[in-house]
Formats: sequence, structure tokens, C-alpha cells
Amino acid sequence: MSEKYVYFFGADQSEGKKEMKELLGGKGANLAEMAGLGVPVPPGFTITTETCDLYYKNNKAHPDKVIKQIDENLVRLEKAMGKKLGDPVDPLLVSVRSGAAVSMPGMMDTVLNLGLNDISVQGVIKKTGNERFAWDSYRRFIQMFGDVVMEVSHSKFEKALEHAKATKGVEYDTDLTAEDLKKLVEEYKKIVKQEAGEDFPQEPRKQLQKSIDAVFGSWNNARAITYRRLNDIKGLLGTAVNIQTMVYGNMGETSGTGVAFSRNPSTGENKIYGEFLMNAQGEDVVAGIRTPRPIEELEKVMPDCYKQFIELSNKLEEHYTDMQDMEFTIQEGTLFMLQTRTGKRTAGAAVRIAVEMVDEKLITQEEALLRVDPNVLDQLLHPQLDQTAKEKAEVLAKGLPASPGAAVGEAIFTADKARDTAAEGHAVILVRKETSPEDIEGMNAAKGILTARGGMTSHAAVVARGMGKCCVAGCGDITVDSEEGQFKVGDLVIKEGDFITLDGSTGELYNGKIPVVEPELSEDFETLIKWADETRKLGVRTNADTPKDAETAIKFGAEGIGLCRTEHMFFEGERIKAVREMILSEDLEGRKKALDKLLPFQKQDFIGLFKVMKDKPVTIRLLDPPLHEFLPQEEDDIQELAKDMGVTVEKLKEKISELHEFNPMLGHRGCRLGIYYPEITEMQARAICEAAAETDAVPEIMIPLVGHVKEFINQKEIVEKVCKEILKDKPYHIGTMIEVPRGALTADEIAEHAEFFSFGTNDLTQMGCGFSRDDAGKFLTQYVELGIYEKDPFQVLDQEGVGQLIKIAVEKGKKVNPKIKLGICGEHGGEPESVKFCHRVGLTYVSCSPYRVPIARLAAAQAVLEEKAK
Amino acid sequence: MSEKYVYFFGADQSEGKKEMKELLGGKGANLAEMAGLGVPVPPGFTITTETCDLYYKNNKAHPDKVIKQIDENLVRLEKAMGKKLGDPVDPLLVSVRSGAAVSMPGMMDTVLNLGLNDISVQGVIKKTGNERFAWDSYRRFIQMFGDVVMEVSHSKFEKALEHAKATKGVEYDTDLTAEDLKKLVEEYKKIVKQEAGEDFPQEPRKQLQKSIDAVFGSWNNARAITYRRLNDIKGLLGTAVNIQTMVYGNMGETSGTGVAFSRNPSTGENKIYGEFLMNAQGEDVVAGIRTPRPIEELEKVMPDCYKQFIELSNKLEEHYTDMQDMEFTIQEGTLFMLQTRTGKRTAGAAVRIAVEMVDEKLITQEEALLRVDPNVLDQLLHPQLDQTAKEKAEVLAKGLPASPGAAVGEAIFTADKARDTAAEGHAVILVRKETSPEDIEGMNAAKGILTARGGMTSHAAVVARGMGKCCVAGCGDITVDSEEGQFKVGDLVIKEGDFITLDGSTGELYNGKIPVVEPELSEDFETLIKWADETRKLGVRTNADTPKDAETAIKFGAEGIGLCRTEHMFFEGERIKAVREMILSEDLEGRKKALDKLLPFQKQDFIGLFKVMKDKPVTIRLLDPPLHEFLPQEEDDIQELAKDMGVTVEKLKEKISELHEFNPMLGHRGCRLGIYYPEITEMQARAICEAAAETDAVPEIMIPLVGHVKEFINQKEIVEKVCKEILKDKPYHIGTMIEVPRGALTADEIAEHAEFFSFGTNDLTQMGCGFSRDDAGKFLTQYVELGIYEKDPFQVLDQEGVGQLIKIAVEKGKKVNPKIKLGICGEHGGEPESVKFCHRVGLTYVSCSPYRVPIARLAAAQAVLEEKAK
Repeated sequence: MSEKYVYFFGADQSEGKKEMKELLGGKGANLAEMAGLGVPVPPGFTITTETCDLYYKNNKAHPDKVIKQIDENLVRLEKAMGKKLGDPVDPLLVSVRSGAAVSMPGMMDTVLNLGLNDISVQGVIKKTGNERFAWDSYRRFIQMFGDVVMEVSHSKFEKALEHAKATKGVEYDTDLTAEDLKKLVEEYKKIVKQEAGEDFPQEPRKQLQKSIDAVFGSWNNARAITYRRLNDIKGLLGTAVNIQTMVYGNMGETSGTGVAFSRNPSTGENKIYGEFLMNAQGEDVVAGIRTPRPIEELEKVMPDCYKQFIELSNKLEEHYTDMQDMEFTIQEGTLFMLQTRTGKRTAGAAVRIAVEMVDEKLITQEEALLRVDPNVLDQLLHPQLDQTAKEKAEVLAKGLPASPGAAVGEAIFTADKARDTAAEGHAVILVRKETSPEDIEGMNAAKGILTARGGMTSHAAVVARGMGKCCVAGCGDITVDSEEGQFKVGDLVIKEGDFITLDGSTGELYNGKIPVVEPELSEDFETLIKWADETRKLGVRTNADTPKDAETAIKFGAEGIGLCRTEHMFFEGERIKAVREMILSEDLEGRKKALDKLLPFQKQDFIGLFKVMKDKPVTIRLLDPPLHEFLPQEEDDIQELAKDMGVTVEKLKEKISELHEFNPMLGHRGCRLGIYYPEITEMQARAICEAAAETDAVPEIMIPLVGHVKEFINQKEIVEKVCKEILKDKPYHIGTMIEVPRGALTADEIAEHAEFFSFGTNDLTQMGCGFSRDDAGKFLTQYVELGIYEKDPFQVLDQEGVGQLIKIAVEKGKKVNPKIKLGICGEHGGEPESVKFCHRVGLTYVSCSPYRVPIARLAAAQAVLEEKAK
Repeated sequence: MSEKYVYFFGADQSEGKKEMKELLGGKGANLAEMAGLGVPVPPGFTITTETCDLYYKNNKAHPDKVIKQIDENLVRLEKAMGKKLGDPVDPLLVSVRSGAAVSMPGMMDTVLNLGLNDISVQGVIKKTGNERFAWDSYRRFIQMFGDVVMEVSHSKFEKALEHAKATKGVEYDTDLTAEDLKKLVEEYKKIVKQEAGEDFPQEPRKQLQKSIDAVFGSWNNARAITYRRLNDIKGLLGTAVNIQTMVYGNMGETSGTGVAFSRNPSTGENKIYGEFLMNAQGEDVVAGIRTPRPIEELEKVMPDCYKQFIELSNKLEEHYTDMQDMEFTIQEGTLFMLQTRTGKRTAGAAVRIAVEMVDEKLITQEEALLRVDPNVLDQLLHPQLDQTAKEKAEVLAKGLPASPGAAVGEAIFTADKARDTAAEGHAVILVRKETSPEDIEGMNAAKGILTARGGMTSHAAVVARGMGKCCVAGCGDITVDSEEGQFKVGDLVIKEGDFITLDGSTGELYNGKIPVVEPELSEDFETLIKWADETRKLGVRTNADTPKDAETAIKFGAEGIGLCRTEHMFFEGERIKAVREMILSEDLEGRKKALDKLLPFQKQDFIGLFKVMKDKPVTIRLLDPPLHEFLPQEEDDIQELAKDMGVTVEKLKEKISELHEFNPMLGHRGCRLGIYYPEITEMQARAICEAAAETDAVPEIMIPLVGHVKEFINQKEIVEKVCKEILKDKPYHIGTMIEVPRGALTADEIAEHAEFFSFGTNDLTQMGCGFSRDDAGKFLTQYVELGIYEKDPFQVLDQEGVGQLIKIAVEKGKKVNPKIKLGICGEHGGEPESVKFCHRVGLTYVSCSPYRVPIARLAAAQAVLEEKAK
């Protein structure tokens, strides 16, 4: 720990710089940096965060050496300003503000106008000739100091103010005269004495010290502690304290204040954007009592100041090489910059600014790629609710933001009805307690999906993201009654056909219709993503089951299909009948007969997919879900199916009960089905090969849920035989999912026989962490709140745990088979942090839902750049 | 490959020895060994297994060098015997037998009496003066040769024989005269000619060569291939062929044959045990037409032979240093040993023989420990069905041998009824479709448990093994109707109160009562286990939830409790009410009130356990199962509970539905409960500590299902606070189960905070392999049949896969915490191969159900000895 506790800034002198955030806090470091650049900043000094730490360690007291340095800097400041604290003629007034290394807006204390007392107030009057301003400043100071330092309730002062106005019969503070305010100062001093039991201190140095200590004290107030916990802010020493010369925008018509961005934060346009008010203080701009004027108008009002501000804006943007969000004050014709920081922006603006800054040679392409958070690209790819209309609308309930975008439509409660209603040209929102594979058609037909149950990786969520369709899942506040065709939110009943609106990016549900804005991909977006493609090493594929999904994904830049789930092809019309016939068959012959009916459907499905993908690789996963998913569970449906199939209801129920499992996730599914019923594997291999033979495809056939090399060999033999028979010399590849921990641990054995691995990180997370994704919502939410897991491991790959299994499998697999192709096809394939992990451990490609392809492309490029920076 | 294809044995000459099994097969190597020892063995020679391999590689033909060596050895044999093959005066007759390195009884072919033809049969008549014997031998030879070499159906010969007897009007073969048999030989030769299309070969060398080739050929017959597959016999070159001089026990009253063990294979008593028949062949002893006489009586009949046999028996036992199973033939007063091998024995005999052989200084203590298969000890610890009675009884159905032992009792179909009926003094078998934790009391009251569903690690199986109670699980042939109070096997209906008998060691179910033999532990058993204790390094603890279990386990040598499952304490009487009250509480206060009611029960339970265990360590696992297990699922029970609890049925059902999970195994259980409801963890910690404070116990408190170090820290903080408050300076330990793959992978992080790990290999197998143990029965059976897994991984630890997780956790855990105590408390803790694995990877102890404690002790000793031998 250094022995320097205080850093001076301003008046062309600067002891700090922007890199010293840890020590000076964000505000202090930035003020020092600006001052260092020659930007007109009201001078002052910063007491370091280390001093805060020392203060607490020292039992809330300062060692003499700290007091000494404060004194020295105060003298230096008085010299720089040619004013003195408490001076009866021209007193120095300062602000005392907190400022930690990480922004904690509004959490800690601030004192303004410090230095005023019964004597110096006269000095201000003399200097400014503005008696009302002087008394008003004094009044405000007592109120703030009383509240922050002396713990006098804010409301006591407010009551006195209200009383003054009432006595006078006026409405606004501004209607009070200098005399009124002077009386109020007396009143305030009495309140302090009465409430705090001691006089309001007249000695400015004492005012200063008490304010500094109060700010340090506020570092550990309840609000600040909670804020840090909620925002996971850790490892900070404390807050810095900034003592800065006060400047006033309310000293008359040549004074003013404003905020501005160096570029438009909404659109990214390279043009100053902001607003100002003359004869006003910062808070007036925010308060909304007076309407601020667009920043451009300042040119007419104060042309010199405007010119200087534009120059400063450019200078700061150039210096920080990013769009700046600035605050300024003009005091009697002199411009002061109070703050600058990198400005927040919309996704569209982020992309445009990054690309244009490259054109302007302000930043490099690589920097541009790092400037855009891949997650925000989602906003650019999906319809969004009109922001203005949305702000006025009432949120009915809130669920999980399961799949981004927005949708408006009639609430419909069954998949069949959704399909039929959509076919008649209506916009439909499918509302279900939870969805199952039987609902696929209805989901496909709907504009959006709303479920009462299930988490971010529930069936509804996964399928909706795959379809790029808006979904609000697990909306626990609604009670769905499919039979009645309605749902309830509290006492409100939404009936079939009533319009509702979903915001899948926020999880919000609205009553009625809200206008939706369709997305449009900008040229800048294309440019940025092209740069990403030039940089990244990871391939990016998509998870797609239908030609439509595949087309969307190709539009978004997918280089192949990493996961085609064949079971989704089993649900439509005639197919589900054949599937059920197969399940209900008592013998091999019966099953083969049913499978023969499925074969032509599957083949046509694959031909459709292969034609869209041309010569791009297509990885097809063989049947994965347990068979019970293909049988109905509801009494009515069972009765109907029994009739259809010509079996007794009793027999059908027996079969359903036979297929029931306690933990279907760990049950008879994946390659276990193909080993039990080799004829299913054979039919699927045949459909794939016959389709490949008629197209340009080089199919990659993927065996699911392999935990033991012998499972893989068993299935590979069946598939290979069919491939050799049908494809002859045409190439094909056979590989496996790695989604069972044992598969990862014995990847070396499996890699001897497999041409590729695809990490199924959904299941790997389920088994690795022991979380059923259908059930874990309840406690995982709490886990994330408690910080047990930083993020939901189903959304962001658990690199420390599940990631180890991937690393082990990659290392073992490559060791015996250096040419092995390695991919990931779990939900994590489109999540930026997880994509970066995939790059680092050496995967060949990631595969994600079509709408996340651009996100994965950008994240993959960032992974390369971040690696380079190390 | 050597150029020596044939090895001679006998007449004090021996080219082989017992270590040459791979090359000479088991039989050939043993004959050579005996001959080398000077044991009178009928001389002969062995054609090697390498020759078999060569024969196949050479397209089923022999190179000249092989034929040459056979010829040379034939001449050598003729010289040694002073007889010639096919000699018209005194012909040599030989047998041709298979003999692979691994015994494959009855799978391959044999030809006897080879060398007989129309001329040499006269030589036999001359030499023996026994015309009938000569023609009978010839007849038998044609039949065997025709069948084995010429592929003439056995039945053709049988028909001719039957016809001959019918014509003569006699019943037995022995009633046929020499003349009859001579005619039959002519008849047989005709059959051969007719069926095979060629004459029965008269040339003895040709007979020999064809027989040799037929035996080689039988190596790859369908039966042999299947046998090798089923018995996992791999890596053998082929079978050897043994050509050996025939000797006959049926040459008159000075001839005979017998089998004997060098000690009693049932009891282990060191006294020759066997039987013989005079004027008979080996097959007659087995056939049971004549009643064989006890071997001791041979002393009176043939005193010299008996004396010689006893000497040989002792010599062989001393040589092989193990109890021998021998076959002999006396031909006209001369004793020949035909075979000796290590004899099979009962568990009791194995123990006694091993211990007594040490006393006799025949083997060392270490050898004795390796002689007994730990698995068989089970037989000595449980009641067994009376063997004789059992053989006469009819098996009704067969399920899984889920928990060993035997039980007889009245079939009872509900847990409550079982408890009540048992309380009235009846012996009860609890029969359920499947059991759940609610059945515990009934299971405890029953003598045995029978379920229609569930595997070797189903609830019924695990709990029964823990209780040391006989259980037949997953008996799919029975249909249980609890409401009617009956079960069906086919058309047979067993009603409540009907007696049934279970054999938990075989999985068999019998109708009615079969006598049961109670176990008694011998002194030899105690001696052997004492030696094991002196040798082993692994500690052996037990899984026990009750003082009764703990007492049993201590009797069997348990050194502590490795797993006490506290949830089993939640089911009885008043407790379950309090548990349900807790679950149904809407707020913390309600839950605490209910937990306060549970506290005294839990405390008393722990005091009971601690008192039994005195100062031995007791590891207590906090609540593990999901809460829904404590609520009823049946309509009636729900109605009753709602009434009891004073809530509406609707509300109760809502709660049950809320607690329903898709995959409860991966759901809200283990430490996830304690994190969600810290008050449960606190109550349990309090009960443990208060009990420990009143006894000598040093409790080890175990947090279940930890996958993330922060879960552990969260729970540890709660437990530690209570421990410090109550136990003050008294020692206690806090550790965790490692049963989630992620927990194993991040064991280094966890070991920083945990004092011990206990591997929960049941769950680790479920998650590591992705198998739900409640559902996997269906396909795991098939997996083991297909050889995908060699053994059911729930029974025998999957060392290659799940074992890696254990190894990783041990290495990582020890690295950061070298003092960490490491145990296993899954079902595998009592399975010998798994116990040995635990020793090798460096665990501190294993914990298993009380009845498996001796098995674990012996296996742990063997692990040390096997390691030493490397």
C-alpha cells in the first residue's frame, strides 16, 4: 500500500489517469484523465479507495498522514481557484462525491455546495450579486449535510419548505424569494439542532471532514451491500471520495447544463445527440419540469461554448476510441465538463458504431469485433414490440424469456386448433400448461408459445428457439384450462380467440395487441459478421430438423447441420400412426411392417433437407426419445387411439404402463432403443442412405446416448452395413453424441471407432450435475440467487464441472484419433461464453438454433481475439 | 510356434506338465502331470491346441510333420503297452478325447474303444476270454464312431438296439448275449453303410485319424461356440486331443470303477469321500441303475487297491495343495487313475479345508485366504432351504435373487397387514408390485419380500439386503392384485394367508412350505476372517439405520457405520405425520413447528444407534429423498391424509402435483432440500449433536448429493453452527457424499472444506452411465447378454467408467487434503471385485449391508495379497 492517499486533478495538473480506477474509482480516474487531456474540468482531488479500506481497518478514523494530505490538497485547490473555503469575499464551494471502481449509481452519499456558512454566504452574494442563488445554495447544503452527515430525516426539511411555500401561497420552490430562503436557512438550522442535538457546523474544514467520513461510511450502508451482492461486485477495497470545485448552471442566462452522446445511442449515427437547459442545474434536466432543448440549439444560444463542446466531444471520443456519454455545465459563459463515460447503446447502434469507427480508422476491425456483445444480436434478428406502445401497455404476467422476439395473436389452447386456426389465416399464440412432442405442429403454426410450466430448457423453450419463434415459458401466474379453452391471470379470464401479446425477450405477457416491428438486417451487420468469419476458427453449424429451419440457418450463415433430430419427423399425420403401430407390435415382423410404412416418409424428409443443404455436411441423429413419448397420456386420446389401432383400451393402457419409467431421462432411450430394436436403426440408416444416394449429401450419421464403446460398435455395425449396401463408394461418416459422462470418460475407446463426436451438453449437464432440466427450475433459480452456480448451467455451460468432461473427452479422443471431428450440439452452442470455451478446448464446430448462428459466429471470432490478447 | 505337436504321457514317461494347460488342454496337462509324478495313468499322447489352430488354418488338413509325430507316438504307445492297434491277438484299444485349456464339459466329441474291427475283436476275445465284453465294446465303438465321425444319427443305432431287445423279449442291454451283440454289430455296420454311404472303416490308423479330426472339428460346432460365448471364453487356440489307452472296469469281479474326493466336499472333513462299483464302467456309477458303494468299502473288496488309492489321493492333494476330485478304474486288479482336478465344494467346506490345510502346513495363511471366494460366504450367513426338500419342490416362478437367504411365510399384500399379522406371531412374506419407503415397517416385520417389478437395486432389493432379509424382486411371472389380496402365476391364484417359500439366493418362488436350515458360524470361519483382518488394509463399516442392524453388523465385524440413512427414521407412526405436516406447511414457522415434533424422535434414534456403536465412528447422512416420497399416491390414502391434516383433498393433491417430478432421481433431493429448507438441516444436525453429547459418539455428518463446493459450504455452515453450539469442544466431522459426477470432477475444491468423502456408487453409476436403476432392468439384462457390459454395473462396480470418477476424486481430494478420509457406501461396498478396486485406488474403508461385512473383510484381504503377487 502506497503512502499517497490523495490525488489532485484539474487546472492542467493531473496526478491520476484512467487506468487507476481501482485506486481512484471510476469517477476520480476519469476526472483525472480529462484534466490530463486539457479538458476543462472543475479542479479538485480524489481520496483513494485504499484510504477507505484504511478508514475501516482503523476503526472509522483517519491516521494523521491522511488528514495531512487532505489539508495539502485543499490548499493546492484553493490556490488553483484563487478562492478559499469559507472566505467572506469569494469563497470556494466544493462537492463531495463517492466513486467506486465499479459504478453503483445512487447507492452512496453526495454532499453539494460545501463551504457555505453564515459568513461565506455573504461572500457568494458579493461575488455573484445573486442573493437568491446564494441563500438557495446554502439552504440546499444544510438539507443535504443534515441528511447525509447528521442523519436528520429528509422529510423534516421538506415539511419546512412546504410550510414556507404554503405561508407564501406559492406552488414552486422558484417562487420563493431570497428573503424567504434566508428565513428557511434559519429554520433548517433549528431543525438540525433539534433533531441531531448539535448545531449545524459553521467551520468549513469540519464540514468537509464530516462529509468525507459520511461518504466512506455509506460504502457499507445496507443499500450498497445489497447492491454489491445482487450485482456480484466483489473484491473492491472501498469507495474513493472526490472533492471537486462546484460550478453552477443556474447563475443566470449565460449559465446552463446538459448531457450529450458523441453519437446517436439509438441508431449509431455519427452525430452529436443530447439536450440542454439554460439557467438550470443538472437535476432540472432529469426532473422533467422544464423541457430540455436539443443540443444542436446550443449553437445559437452560446456559439462559442457549442463549438468548444463539439471539439471536446470529438477529442474525448478519439481519446477513448468509443462513443461517449458526457455531462457539462456552463457557468457564466465558461464550459466545464463534469463527466464522460462510454455510452450505452442499442444493438443496432453498437454494430453501426463499431463498423463506422473502423471506416474512420478510429479502431481496428479486431477492436470492432470485441465491441459488440454477441448476445445483443438477438434483438436484430427477431421482431420486437414497438417500444412506445409497449411502455404504455400493462404487463399481465411475467414468465421466463425462453425464446426472443415478439408475437401477437389469438390465444389457442390445443395444438390441433392452433394448426387449423393458423391455416385459416389467423395469427395464433399457442397457450399450454406445458408442451410435448405432440404439440410440434401446433407450435410450428403459431406465432408464439406461452406455457405455464417449464424452464429455459423445457420442451417449449428448446423447440421454440429452434424454430426462431417467440416463447414465454414457465409463466406461473397463469392458470391454463385447456378443456374450457381459457386461462386465468388473477381474476382476469382470457378466452380462446382473445388477443394477447408476448415479448419473448423479456418474458412479458400483455393483454390485447401491441404493434410489432419486424427486423431488418443492416449492411453494417453483414460487414461485422463478415469480419467475424475472417477471424474465427470454429465452424458454425445449426440444429435444424426441417428444410425451413435449414433455409433460415443458411441465411444466417450456417455452414452445415450439426444436429437433425429425426424424432421430430415422427409426429405428423400418417407417421405417428405408423410409429404407434410399431410400438404396439408384439413381434419383429409387426414392427418391420410398421417401419416399412415410415421409411418413405423419412426418406422424403431427408431428401428435402439434403437438397437445401446441397454439399454442406448434415449430421443426423438416430431416434433418441423414449417410446412412451409417442403414445397419448390423456384418457380421451387413449380411447381414440385404441379404436384406431384396433386394440382394446386395456391392452393399450398396459403398453403405456409398461413403457412408463420413473426417470425417463435415464431410461430406455437413445442407442438403447436401437440396440433393443435394431430394426429401427436399420430403417433410419436406410432412409438416410437412400436420400443421400439421390442428392449431393455426405451424411453424418450420429448414434445418440453412447456411454460404452460397445454400444457404439453395436449400432455402427448395423448402420455401416446399410451404408455399404446403398451408398457403395459414396462417402459417409458415422459418429456419436458424447452426452453421458461415461462416454466422455472413455472417449479414447470410442474414438477408435467413431469419426466424430458431438457434445450433447444438455444431457451432459443433466447427468454431470445431476439436474433434471424439467424439474430443476425450482431450485436452480434459488441456486443462482445464492450464487451456488453463477449462471443457470443449462443456459451457460458449466465450464468448471461439465466442461471438464468435455476437455477429458477431447484430449482422450484426439489422442487415439487426431483427425476426429469435434462439435457441440447442445443449447450451449449458441451462447457466447460457451462458444468461447468450445474454441479454447479445440472443438471443430459449434451447432446452434438458426437464430443464434450469427451470435455464435461473432463469439467464435471474439474467442480468437481474446486468446491472442493473452 | 514350436515344431512339437504331440506330447507323450504315462509309463513313467511324461513330456508335459500341469503348467502347459494352454498347449495341452486341461485334461492333457493333468494326465502328463500325474504320469510325471509316477501315478499309474493309462499311457497315451496329447496332440496340442496349436495343432488344432494349424488344422483350421491349413483348411482342415494336417501337414505331414503332424501326421509323422502322431505315427511316432502311436509306435511309442504300442511299445509301452506291448500291444498293437488292430492286433488279432492282443490289440491296443484307445480313447480319443477333446480337452481345451478351459473346461467345456460335454460340448465336444469323444470316441472310445477305438482300434476294434472284425479282426481285433477276436484278439480281445482271446485275451479276455470274455466274448460278450468284446462284442459289446465293438458295438459301442461303431455307434460312437458312426455318430461322431460319420454323422450317422444316434437314433438309428438306438432303434436297432431296441429292436434286438424286443425280438429277444428282454428289457436291459445287459440281457443281450454275445451272440445277440455280434448280430447287432453286423446290423450297425449296415446302418453306417446305408446312412453314410460308405463302409465302417476297418483300418485302425484310419479310425484314429478320422476321430482326431472329428474332435478338432467339434471345437467349432454350434454348441461349443455358444458355450464359449455365454461363458465369455476367449483367446484360446483350439482344443487339444488326447489319445489314451483304454482301461475297463467291467472286465469281471476284479475290475471296477469309482469317483472320490480327497476330502468331504460338503463338510470339508479331511476324510476320503466317494463311491465305487465293481465290474462296471464309469457311466454306470453316474447312471444310477446300480447303487454305488461308499469308497470305504473298497478296503474290504480290494484292500491293496484301496491302500494304493488312498496313498495316491494323499500324494495328489499334497502335490496340488488342494482337495482333489478323482476318477479311477481298476482293470483286473490293477488301479488306474483317469483324472484328478481341484474339487468343487460348498462354502462351509471351502472355509474348513482352507483353515485345516494351514494347520496341516499344506498351505500358508495367505493361500488359505485366496482359496475362498468371498461371494460364497453369503451362504453361511443366511438361512438356506433344505436342499433335499427343495429338489423335490416345484418352482412356481423365478425372479431376481435380490437378497440372499430363504423364507417361508403367509403371503400378505400390504405393509400394514404384514406388520399386524407378524405382530400376531405369524411368519409373513410381503408381496408387492413394488415397494416404496412407506412399506418399510411391513418389510421389517416380514420374513421375506417378493416383488413383481424392479431390479437388483430396486427399493425392495436395497432395503432387504440392508436388513439381511430374503428378497425375490422383479418376479415378472406373477400378477399382484393388492386390493383383492392375491397374486396369480398363470392360472394359479395365491390368496392372502396362503403359504409360499422364497429362495433369495436363486430368485425362486415355491408354493407352500419348504423347511429352512438356520445358519451357524463355524470356528473355522472365525479363524479365516481373523486372518483376513490381520491382512487387510481397508476398513470395513456397515450401512445401518437401526440399532438392530448395527448390532448384526458388529457381530459380523463392522468397525463403524459408513452410512446411516436418516429418512428411514421418518416413516414410523407419529413421525410420518410430523414429516407430512412439515411438507404441507406454507411457511417457515409451520415447518419449524413440525420439525420440532420430529426432533425428539430423531434424537432418540441417534442415541440408540450411538449406544450400540459406542466409540466406533458413525456416519449419518442428512435427508436425501425427494419430499414426494413421504406423501401418499393412492386416492384412498390421499383422502385419509387430507382428513388427518385438516386440509382439503384438492389442496393436498395440488401439493402432491407440485412435488411431482419428471426425473425425481435428478430432482429436488439431497442437499438441494437442505439448501431450500435450511431448517431441516438444522433440525437434523441438532438431533445428531444432542444425541452425541449424551453418548461417546464422534458423529460424522454427511451432506448428500453435493455437486458443487458451494452447496457443501452452504450446508456445512448450518451444521457447524449447531455442532459448535451443542458439542462445544467435543469432536465431530463434516463431510460429503461423492455421488454426482460433477462432485467427483471438482473434488479438489470440495476437499478444501470436507473432512471426508463417501462415494455413493449407486447414484454415481446412475448419473455416470445415465441409467435409472429403477428402469434399467429391462435393457441392462440385454446389455449383459450382449456383452456390452460384462456385469450389471449396479452389482459390480464399472471400474473402467464410473471407477474413473472415483480415481479422479481420490487423486484430486488427496492432493489438497492428504488427511481426507475416503469411503464407499454404495451397494458395491460389499461386492468383492469392487472392494478390491476400492483397495487399489486407496480408499480408507468400505461400507456395506451388515450381512456382507464378512465378504468385504475377506475381499479386502485378498486385495492386499493380489497386489503383493504382482
